[in-house]
Amino acid sequence: MEQFSPQLDGVFVALADPTRRGVIRRLGHGPTSVGDLAREFPMTLPSFMKHVRTLESNGLIRTAKSGRVRTCVLNRERLALVDDWLAEQRRVWEERTDRLERLVTDPKENRQ
Amino acid sequence: MEQFSPQLDGVFVALADPTRRGVIRRLGHGPTSVGDLAREFPMTLPSFMKHVRTLESNGLIRTAKSGRVRTCVLNRERLALVDDWLAEQRRVWEERTDRLERLVTDPKENRQ
Repeated sequence: MEQFSPQLDGVFVALADPTRRGVIRRLGHGPTSVGDLAREFPMTLPSFMKHVRTLESNGLIRTAKSGRVRTCVLNRERLALVDDWLAEQRRVWEERTDRLERLVTDPKENRQ
Repeated sequence: MEQFSPQLDGVFVALADPTRRGVIRRLGHGPTSVGDLAREFPMTLPSFMKHVRTLESNGLIRTAKSGRVRTCVLNRERLALVDDWLAEQRRVWEERTDRLERLVTDPKENRQ
């Protein structure tokens, strides 16, 4: 996971805000125009656009312009980095549990 | 999940740094003194202590002092908030997939 460290920094920064998490949740229902999204969040359009740009620059969403409409799409692969990181932590905990079990069941493990 | 929003903000802020993620990983192996932890990270002790305090104030670790030694313990329950949030997003995606499937298999769904 260490090779994904800079990406993970950005993903966690992007997730550390309720508006940005709300956008991710909303885009889970399907691609949505920036205009439609913005109407659901009580702030000015420039403030909302800052959140959209943070999500986009950190790879959590993609946006594409068609005529005058910019549409946002969720990038689930980037969210999967968080899943992978959590799974890695669980592996560490499970290794520890296994080792504690061996300490209890096999006295030779106590030597070190 | 909305009731956990302020806690989630803090958890994601705390996770948005490789040193703090490293501390969480290290504590997955078991409780560790601040001194032993600090030796594993290439920075000054004051800088390291700032990371420890960020983790503690956001509930990801607990620390307790016994004599001159402060020991850090991982708080897995707080990390579980991230698991829960990811699970909630997956529910939204699965609902969408189910709806798309119904649209394909049941033409009445196309009315709206």
